[in-house]
Amino acid sequence: MRQYLQSEKLGAFLVLTKINRQYISGFTGSAGAVLVSKKRAELFVDDRYLIRARRESSLPVKNLKSLGSALKQSGKIGIEDRISLRELKWLKKFGGRHQVTRDVVENMRAVKTAQELAAISQGQLVVDKIFQHIKKFVKLGMTEAAVSLEMTQIAKKLGADGMAFDSIVAFGANAAAPHHLSGSTKIGKNNFLLLDFGVLVDGYHSDFTRTLFLGKPNKKQERVYQIVQEAQQFAISKVRPGAKASGVDAVARDYIASQGFGQYFTHNSGHGVGLEIHELPNFSTESEDVLQANMVVTVEPGIYIEKWGGVRIEDMVIVDNRSGKVPSKIPRDLKTMIIN
Amino acid sequence: MRQYLQSEKLGAFLVLTKINRQYISGFTGSAGAVLVSKKRAELFVDDRYLIRARRESSLPVKNLKSLGSALKQSGKIGIEDRISLRELKWLKKFGGRHQVTRDVVENMRAVKTAQELAAISQGQLVVDKIFQHIKKFVKLGMTEAAVSLEMTQIAKKLGADGMAFDSIVAFGANAAAPHHLSGSTKIGKNNFLLLDFGVLVDGYHSDFTRTLFLGKPNKKQERVYQIVQEAQQFAISKVRPGAKASGVDAVARDYIASQGFGQYFTHNSGHGVGLEIHELPNFSTESEDVLQANMVVTVEPGIYIEKWGGVRIEDMVIVDNRSGKVPSKIPRDLKTMIIN
Repeated sequence: MRQYLQSEKLGAFLVLTKINRQYISGFTGSAGAVLVSKKRAELFVDDRYLIRARRESSLPVKNLKSLGSALKQSGKIGIEDRISLRELKWLKKFGGRHQVTRDVVENMRAVKTAQELAAISQGQLVVDKIFQHIKKFVKLGMTEAAVSLEMTQIAKKLGADGMAFDSIVAFGANAAAPHHLSGSTKIGKNNFLLLDFGVLVDGYHSDFTRTLFLGKPNKKQERVYQIVQEAQQFAISKVRPGAKASGVDAVARDYIASQGFGQYFTHNSGHGVGLEIHELPNFSTESEDVLQANMVVTVEPGIYIEKWGGVRIEDMVIVDNRSGKVPSKIPRDLKTMIIN
Repeated sequence: MRQYLQSEKLGAFLVLTKINRQYISGFTGSAGAVLVSKKRAELFVDDRYLIRARRESSLPVKNLKSLGSALKQSGKIGIEDRISLRELKWLKKFGGRHQVTRDVVENMRAVKTAQELAAISQGQLVVDKIFQHIKKFVKLGMTEAAVSLEMTQIAKKLGADGMAFDSIVAFGANAAAPHHLSGSTKIGKNNFLLLDFGVLVDGYHSDFTRTLFLGKPNKKQERVYQIVQEAQQFAISKVRPGAKASGVDAVARDYIASQGFGQYFTHNSGHGVGLEIHELPNFSTESEDVLQANMVVTVEPGIYIEKWGGVRIEDMVIVDNRSGKVPSKIPRDLKTMIIN
């Protein structure tokens, strides 16, 4: 951050958004500010949070009321383009010059420290155990919501702090909606059961999808599954430092299109994971992001056919010095996914 | 909203923030836009969300890619001041004129419909049951985190969709931090155990605090508890349509100050509750917000003394045509709060 201040000729950088503030300070509360200047970094919170902030953060903690005078002494201040128009208006009351910046802290967050990688890997261990448990737990006639609740309870028992997001448990035609909300649909036979979930460990998210099958798949179901599995495998094999995220995306996308299912793959092939479930790098077709060692990304192609169903296979991939390493030990082949 | 468009001479209003979008459209996904013009209201989402949006929303659903051309045909557009600088930059690419607005949808949300009041009241029923259960469940030596987990599990069993926020379970000195994170502290004797929690029902939050006591309170503990209880009662008695939120706050604040504990009451006396846990009206000393029938607000004074402990008593209060109605049936007196 101090290198950045120097190169951009800024007096200080003001972090107002929650997750960036947590990343810089360790403070997890919902309001506050971190001001980083060449000489110091300080956390400003309101009265409600003073005690918690001192406990969570190694930065000096000050009352938010004193932020204005600290800003006035800071010269030109870098601000995040994710703050709201309302926050900018509030900042302008203190006077001074501002420079709107994009993704400064987000880019730092994309490359993980050893400690962050450990939290994410620990999350994947829990995720693998949840998946193995659920594979035995799922029975015909259960609701999607019951499976989702069981995941949450097992996660807590295994020591996770919670789920990374509302788990997606989608049976049959519901699996055609990539972001289906688990509901009262009962799990039946001869169709896919898509499970997309992750846990929280020390604030770090994990993200994982497998698509189970109850009964005996027909030819089309086998073929769609195999295309997704191959697309994922090809894309993972392209993960390495220096590769473009959009290039990894293109490998999965082009393969699915070459098999005649291009119109049914409607989202990006992946995203970074960390303190947020979706963070940098960005895998969209237009993205310029380049993979670097110690990034953690997902690779998650899918095929979604309305009224028919859907398949997605997703793994987190840790970019190491030469390639991508998948922390999950769960296989991906259709045979392993079949529940009779 | 159409009245607002007319009075402000706007061609349309663009809702981009998540909760306002959900309020207007019913759609709960994490990305999308609602455009309300004099003639129509439409929901725009990306490919991932098309199916879910059609299921959740009664508005016509369009692809987000077509938002630009819809904006170009809309004349001057009202935008929310809670959108980010990045979002504004993105909007400007489509050209056209924008008027930054403050709290337009938020003010609509503050006054609840019968259906919203029903969801919040149902939440309070669950909260009351959780509290009664926890009062029997708590034992010496349990950790705060174990109590918090039990709350979550009971909430799910009782049919809630989840907790309204990370439950605050704070024993002894921990209760001096109004927003303590429940942790590995074990519950001991002769001190306060503060429980601040709520549940989610159909997207609506509830918010409730009682402060239990294990063992026998000393004089100071009795006195602090009584002051908070009286402050809350006085403030609740001032809740009615036409009252200023800052006036309700002042009643609690002035009473606590008159008893010599003013410096230990460090947050606002309340806030609105609904699709967000904190929403309008605002109870700060500077707030100009006026209570109206069918608002739902909390009244929650507290006294927090570092290294000693803290007491807070909080109820949701539904503003009816003449006064405030507390949906909880849980008593507030210290005798009821004592666990021997």
